Amino acid sequence: MAIFIQHCKELLTPLFPGNGKIQRLKNASLIIEDNLISWVGSDHDCPSPEPGDQVIDGTNQILTPGLIDSHTHLVFAGDRSGEFIQRTQGATYQQISASGGGIASTVTKTREASAYDLLRTARPRVNRWMEQGVTTLEIKSGYGLTTESELKLLRVIRQLKKEVPIDISATFLGAHDIPAEFKENRTDYIQKIITEMIPAVSAENLAEAVDVFCETGVYSISESRLILESALHHKLKIKVHADELSALGGASLAAQLNGLSADHLLCITDQGINDLTNSETVAILLPGTAWFLKMPYAPARKLLDSGICVALATDFNPGSCTIDQFSFILMLAALYMNMTPDEILSAVTVNAAKALDRETETGKLAPGYRADLVLWNAPSWEHIIYHPTHNHAGKVFASGKLIYQSEIWNECLFL
Amino acid sequence: MAIFIQHCKELLTPLFPGNGKIQRLKNASLIIEDNLISWVGSDHDCPSPEPGDQVIDGTNQILTPGLIDSHTHLVFAGDRSGEFIQRTQGATYQQISASGGGIASTVTKTREASAYDLLRTARPRVNRWMEQGVTTLEIKSGYGLTTESELKLLRVIRQLKKEVPIDISATFLGAHDIPAEFKENRTDYIQKIITEMIPAVSAENLAEAVDVFCETGVYSISESRLILESALHHKLKIKVHADELSALGGASLAAQLNGLSADHLLCITDQGINDLTNSETVAILLPGTAWFLKMPYAPARKLLDSGICVALATDFNPGSCTIDQFSFILMLAALYMNMTPDEILSAVTVNAAKALDRETETGKLAPGYRADLVLWNAPSWEHIIYHPTHNHAGKVFASGKLIYQSEIWNECLFL
Repeated sequence: MAIFIQHCKELLTPLFPGNGKIQRLKNASLIIEDNLISWVGSDHDCPSPEPGDQVIDGTNQILTPGLIDSHTHLVFAGDRSGEFIQRTQGATYQQISASGGGIASTVTKTREASAYDLLRTARPRVNRWMEQGVTTLEIKSGYGLTTESELKLLRVIRQLKKEVPIDISATFLGAHDIPAEFKENRTDYIQKIITEMIPAVSAENLAEAVDVFCETGVYSISESRLILESALHHKLKIKVHADELSALGGASLAAQLNGLSADHLLCITDQGINDLTNSETVAILLPGTAWFLKMPYAPARKLLDSGICVALATDFNPGSCTIDQFSFILMLAALYMNMTPDEILSAVTVNAAKALDRETETGKLAPGYRADLVLWNAPSWEHIIYHPTHNHAGKVFASGKLIYQSEIWNECLFL
Repeated sequence: MAIFIQHCKELLTPLFPGNGKIQRLKNASLIIEDNLISWVGSDHDCPSPEPGDQVIDGTNQILTPGLIDSHTHLVFAGDRSGEFIQRTQGATYQQISASGGGIASTVTKTREASAYDLLRTARPRVNRWMEQGVTTLEIKSGYGLTTESELKLLRVIRQLKKEVPIDISATFLGAHDIPAEFKENRTDYIQKIITEMIPAVSAENLAEAVDVFCETGVYSISESRLILESALHHKLKIKVHADELSALGGASLAAQLNGLSADHLLCITDQGINDLTNSETVAILLPGTAWFLKMPYAPARKLLDSGICVALATDFNPGSCTIDQFSFILMLAALYMNMTPDEILSAVTVNAAKALDRETETGKLAPGYRADLVLWNAPSWEHIIYHPTHNHAGKVFASGKLIYQSEIWNECLFL
């Protein structure tokens, strides 16, 4: 039984990672067979459905690939609204950390939480992403910082992957911080990551990639390199939290090691841009975090104009970005990073797929690709960016399965 | 039959307009009788319900007054996503206006729309405000700019007021722009406002207040004064779009004429602050608009520290702020205007009530006030500000009637 989606007002799809070019087709149809897209084209060229096929009317709707959020930390315990309020009243991050706040406070709560509680709280968060049209979701560990608690987080992510109908990609981020108990002997913690954690993650096949917070005061370039080389040795892919708060050179490191992505990049240097340009590493930009931390945005135009493959992600986490609305991230990218609607669509589909090593599976509407797609209740793709606080997702398909359908009265508020 | 709301984790209420002081009471109860609040206090002092009374358990919930959005333009036709995208790609407002964009494009679409279509599209927008805990809502006309079409907009607002269970306050904003057909003889349009529109609005009792866009290139101080004095003559209250894009002196004008509010104030001068300080005029700040237009925020701290009564509102409209999530406005006020959680709560309750001349009716939890209140699915009021893209409203009461209840699975994503 095939599913025919017909009469879409407009179908938009990137063609390949990188350049932000989007193919737009008015009055479009798409056919789903066996969880894959089998046909894409104009209404008048569309084959006729046969008895038993399902037909969905896309009139007045916009069709795009399912969105891909390539950078989140959405398994954690506790909230940090107290330190957020302190920050608005002038407290510095150093003062907040000194009083037990910052990542350390989430680590404490997350270590205390059971796997069951972490799963119970993460599950509705994943639902929220699905409802917004996200069909592929990356989730990092990194709030445990002991072998046991990092494995607990990754097992929760594995369980989520089993329970939900969307694709989840797990990343091991044991190097998210130096835990308090190792502040005086950080080398020991790094050894533990390399000799204990990464082998265990690899043995249990709990993550696809290893990430490091490469930052002044956290992991240096040489420490990050040690950890990432150990990951490569265990056949794990790599990602880097790079050049976020200072220009340490994380982007260049990611490029040199052929990493999947270099993420954040608020402080990237010309050298870093040059190194990314000459690599296959995707630049994942997280404008919600810049906004939440009141930092200057990453130089998106410079990256794009250098030909770098740019993705956009939420970075959802309890300390530096609580924005759980993907369209708001798209709005920030348009308004504060001057990305075009086409660049933005590429950044949350095909380029994000590449950042998760899935560019041959999902992220575009083409025969043979996974049937991950969204029918939007909106007059245009541009409208979704312009009106970001409303969820415009009308129907969401993941691997050909309808996983979300908006209430019938959830029309776009501008029509 | 009374309604008892018991065991609230915390009840927060301002005491009176102005100073941002909030009374906080843990383990609190509240009783509703005949659409009014009849009792507020601690659980252990709460009288016992009698047979037939309704009891609502507020365990783990936060109780506040219903929110008041004191500045919106939510009746309009058309979207302006095209000009938004042009702006992100460097087009100036002047260029956009020259190509038929700006307020003029909404005016064209709104004049063409029938009252029925305007009502049909505005209705779900009001629902969205209600779902977020808004129990009093101001709506301005101003996209008609002919007598007929301005009256059409105000009649739509009057019809909304009849249909919805929340309180709606209508404002006449015929002086929102100089319509294209009067660009060469603006005095004639101003005369039309004074001799035709305001008398008609007053005769049909279609608005509580008259507002003017007092701005360089729109209405000068002397033109604004003429219009506002005509409003006063017809016993209408007054409001001013003041010192938004330039320091024209609108705040001082509002204060001199004893206006209910001076709104926007991005460019307010020390003289304007001084004049507001010595007045009963509320400063309505609209940080969503500053964010959307990439302008510097209004000097909220300076206003607050001068003792001015500050309200916060969405300014929802299709051109300069499409944010239809009130909590996002609260987040901007905290993060980018350094307002405290208590000042923010006052700004969307009692101070906003004063800006709509309703401070003796609503905006606080106290016996005799209208039972407009919200039970929030959140661990604290601060959490709602810190995590703004989630709707935390659990139950919303307007005049003692339950008007919205969240799905049972809509728990806070951080618990």
